[in-house]
Amino acid sequence: MCRWLAYSGSPVLLEELLYRPKHSLIVQSLHSQLGAEETNGDGFGVGWYGEADTPAVFHSIEPAWNDRNLRDLARHIRSGVVFAHIRASTGSPVQQTNCHPFRHGRWLWMHNGLIGDFLRVKRDLVLQVDPSLYPDMEGTTDSEVLFHLALTYGLEDDPPTAVERAIGLVEAVGEKHGVDHAMQGTMATTNGESLWAFRYSSEGKSRSLFYSTDVRTLKAQHPDNPVLHELSDESRMVVSEPCGALAGAWNEVPESSYGVVQEGQDELRPFTPRRPNGARPSGTGTKAPA
Amino acid sequence: MCRWLAYSGSPVLLEELLYRPKHSLIVQSLHSQLGAEETNGDGFGVGWYGEADTPAVFHSIEPAWNDRNLRDLARHIRSGVVFAHIRASTGSPVQQTNCHPFRHGRWLWMHNGLIGDFLRVKRDLVLQVDPSLYPDMEGTTDSEVLFHLALTYGLEDDPPTAVERAIGLVEAVGEKHGVDHAMQGTMATTNGESLWAFRYSSEGKSRSLFYSTDVRTLKAQHPDNPVLHELSDESRMVVSEPCGALAGAWNEVPESSYGVVQEGQDELRPFTPRRPNGARPSGTGTKAPA
Amino acid sequence: MCRWLAYSGSPVLLEELLYRPKHSLIVQSLHSQLGAEETNGDGFGVGWYGEADTPAVFHSIEPAWNDRNLRDLARHIRSGVVFAHIRASTGSPVQQTNCHPFRHGRWLWMHNGLIGDFLRVKRDLVLQVDPSLYPDMEGTTDSEVLFHLALTYGLEDDPPTAVERAIGLVEAVGEKHGVDHAMQGTMATTNGESLWAFRYSSEGKSRSLFYSTDVRTLKAQHPDNPVLHELSDESRMVVSEPCGALAGAWNEVPESSYGVVQEGQDELRPFTPRRPNGARPSGTGTKAPA
Amino acid sequence: MCRWLAYSGSPVLLEELLYRPKHSLIVQSLHSQLGAEETNGDGFGVGWYGEADTPAVFHSIEPAWNDRNLRDLARHIRSGVVFAHIRASTGSPVQQTNCHPFRHGRWLWMHNGLIGDFLRVKRDLVLQVDPSLYPDMEGTTDSEVLFHLALTYGLEDDPPTAVERAIGLVEAVGEKHGVDHAMQGTMATTNGESLWAFRYSSEGKSRSLFYSTDVRTLKAQHPDNPVLHELSDESRMVVSEPCGALAGAWNEVPESSYGVVQEGQDELRPFTPRRPNGARPSGTGTKAPA
Repeated sequence: MCRWLAYSGSPVLLEELLYRPKHSLIVQSLHSQLGAEETNGDGFGVGWYGEADTPAVFHSIEPAWNDRNLRDLARHIRSGVVFAHIRASTGSPVQQTNCHPFRHGRWLWMHNGLIGDFLRVKRDLVLQVDPSLYPDMEGTTDSEVLFHLALTYGLEDDPPTAVERAIGLVEAVGEKHGVDHAMQGTMATTNGESLWAFRYSSEGKSRSLFYSTDVRTLKAQHPDNPVLHELSDESRMVVSEPCGALAGAWNEVPESSYGVVQEGQDELRPFTPRRPNGARPSGTGTKAPA
Repeated sequence: MCRWLAYSGSPVLLEELLYRPKHSLIVQSLHSQLGAEETNGDGFGVGWYGEADTPAVFHSIEPAWNDRNLRDLARHIRSGVVFAHIRASTGSPVQQTNCHPFRHGRWLWMHNGLIGDFLRVKRDLVLQVDPSLYPDMEGTTDSEVLFHLALTYGLEDDPPTAVERAIGLVEAVGEKHGVDHAMQGTMATTNGESLWAFRYSSEGKSRSLFYSTDVRTLKAQHPDNPVLHELSDESRMVVSEPCGALAGAWNEVPESSYGVVQEGQDELRPFTPRRPNGARPSGTGTKAPA
Repeated sequence: MCRWLAYSGSPVLLEELLYRPKHSLIVQSLHSQLGAEETNGDGFGVGWYGEADTPAVFHSIEPAWNDRNLRDLARHIRSGVVFAHIRASTGSPVQQTNCHPFRHGRWLWMHNGLIGDFLRVKRDLVLQVDPSLYPDMEGTTDSEVLFHLALTYGLEDDPPTAVERAIGLVEAVGEKHGVDHAMQGTMATTNGESLWAFRYSSEGKSRSLFYSTDVRTLKAQHPDNPVLHELSDESRMVVSEPCGALAGAWNEVPESSYGVVQEGQDELRPFTPRRPNGARPSGTGTKAPA
Repeated sequence: MCRWLAYSGSPVLLEELLYRPKHSLIVQSLHSQLGAEETNGDGFGVGWYGEADTPAVFHSIEPAWNDRNLRDLARHIRSGVVFAHIRASTGSPVQQTNCHPFRHGRWLWMHNGLIGDFLRVKRDLVLQVDPSLYPDMEGTTDSEVLFHLALTYGLEDDPPTAVERAIGLVEAVGEKHGVDHAMQGTMATTNGESLWAFRYSSEGKSRSLFYSTDVRTLKAQHPDNPVLHELSDESRMVVSEPCGALAGAWNEVPESSYGVVQEGQDELRPFTPRRPNGARPSGTGTKAPA
């Protein structure tokens, strides 16, 4: 699978996010500890909000750990909203159009996990993508199709509902094709202002996902840590696996839930896929977080 | 657009086909004379029949003119059926899955040209691809969709009819969407035994296509040319533009026609797209060759 | 050879420099008009000054014209000193370590042209590079060796003298080996504050080089051009070939001369290689500009 | 470091060597068990003898595990002498010119390990390379310099002595610069007829190296194994780590020794570096194998 990192807060150099932490995302590209695969060397991508109306994305088919351009860019690019993703392909080709984050207008999307038996259900899913969005899909990943389903279902207006409907469709189509575990993964999306992160799998055993503790709390707990004091109180990270060793800094996102990082109070809520008929399914994989 | 070369005959080193001629395909990658674009530097591909049941393909996103691997492989690979293609993208990404030739089982396919307004008609075309073939499409080119339409319509049994039906569909769908010139191009396909080459465009102004003169004739005309005497009488090349300077060696494939290179007598026949309803269209672009 | 662009002035988006002009550097990568080669598709590089102490460089082995990362970065990176270079290899491999601009500490360097018969003289030249700088050479180009010779001769203290000594050495070593035209090219170097551009060839027929007219003059001549009014009076470009169509905007750098773009008055001065013995050579290739 | 495989014997498909074994080299690119690094994802290379006078090499900067071209080539290329190498960079750039095997005329060379403190001793070593060979070095690895030192010392006439002299120089120069462990590694070289494999390190703790048991013995031990019966009695593999699970198939090459795979009786002999003054050194790292 993959590993990813989402950041929202005080503008920081990409270097601080990607290289500085002891168990940074770049280190994870060679040695992930919680991922389904230890090595995530099948390309990577970074997205950030900067000068232009739409976010920038930088995609590479080389492993992140030896990419010199990434190292250089990371020392010079500063942004308040950053997505970064390292890929371990589950079969689809290693090409830039399969690198996350994906972009649509002001929106970014990334995903760790998979749609079960994707090649079997792909056509049925793609048919549900809005025809006007159809030509925008340039790669061959399940993640990109999921993004365009969410866009079809109104991601830009109501992200949680759109993702619930997209995954509800994935489960309905999977069921039709006899797929056992239709959906697996963690996903993040942002419009450059708020950030949504989802953790869900049809079998109720989702890939790991963590969010950072409120910076105010951390500052109180670690009054001598200078890095913390450079961060605004609103700064927050969501990651596939903890990438620093600061005690008390990381909290697991519960199964079947999603979080919103936004101006004001952040939120953590239950996530329940919505089937195409509008009904919420009952049964496996939908237990609410404690 | 692109440039391509198809060879069938005595087994030859790829080097003889790709590098030796004065105006070779590799030279054309930098300086095409007849192409819509002079530079064809957006990746390339070579396909050939060798040890395995299915043909080999080698795809690269680098320009052919400076690819050291191609140069080395060309000195060591010998085959009796070779396809080679250099790409000038008309918009779709430069990635290996967009490099020709495309492969399905024992079949290879390559194309120079384009489906008009492809992003507008793509979804309608893709929907006609046999669902069992659908997941095999890994890239984003019109050429790969065209190949899978032809496969859907029976390419493996009757190539000319399958291609006529595929292009008939392209024209019908284009018409529905108000596309002016739905189809443009030259195409080649092979199963490793026979080779079919097509020249057709909806507006009747197709990309150039040439076939080599019968080797027996060339041997009689050039009794002192040693290269010719290494070739079997059955050897034949079909190319986007002539790649050698031998007098009398190249003949233009007429508008709206296709050729078959096969055991026994090669053939040159008229090509007429077949619309989905089975009717042959009347009007522009379907005039038979003289 | 290659084409390059150097900019110093008001911070601008790379996009304005690289993509906006009618005959932009990106266009030149496919269709150069004044270059020794029309196509400059063997990789490219961009260097700029930003957040870190040392400038950023972004190198790619793909042709610039189809690099999506460059297009995205260009929309988000703003800098007051930018170097950009598109490469047409004269034989050395297409790899990132052969892409310009080269960097040493705060210095950038790029070059269009060649050291004559480089493989014959390379060892003798490399031996003159300061041993402490020797391991920094990572590629195989003449341009990188030239840069390290200039660094050896004090580029960081007195660029014109260092370059005169470096090229004097190239000519002396070339003479020893019987090379006809030892040096050919245009070069640019910067420390992020001032910018030096050189035009010189041993035979007195140097690659083209142009500098932009003083912005104050252009503003007076084109009072209605809004782009000009965004530029500070100090803004200046030096380029291999003019990349815009503004009347009166471009002036040729004379043979055997160099220019300095700096705070205060820019300068244009004669350039004369200095042989290792300290003497200035007499004869061809050293005529002063009018 | 890296992992490598050398094969000499009955012509086999690359696929049999690279993909078929349970713990194949391709598997090792993701999960090496005996290597200094578990992941060997910094490019790879394959060399083989085929149609041309000189061997073919195929180099790629992508990880071997996801390279589609390699997979296709492996199904179609058959050779009696094959070198394959997967790289884990110890700092030098990931570029094709740093991929093994290196080639000179009919000779191939590959190396797993390193020259200690290479950047400190590189210049002194390079100066000892024959000036006529100097321009052939295109990359920046210690391995390529070692190859050219061995060529300088007569590799083509007497490989063991040439390698002993090359490594003797490395140790002498390392000593001068105060390098603790000047040499580490296993190396293989071939002219397409015989094959030499070396295991040596200055500290006497060399990277692992194994050779396959005589095919006659294996056939007697495993009379029912069909793969063995396709192999000629002369077939032999030398590998960084065993890549199959056949009992009794693999034997460790002792410390400080080298083997020769050749027509007639293969040999295993002690390896002792020769210092530049011609004397054999005494002391650590030179103990003969039991």
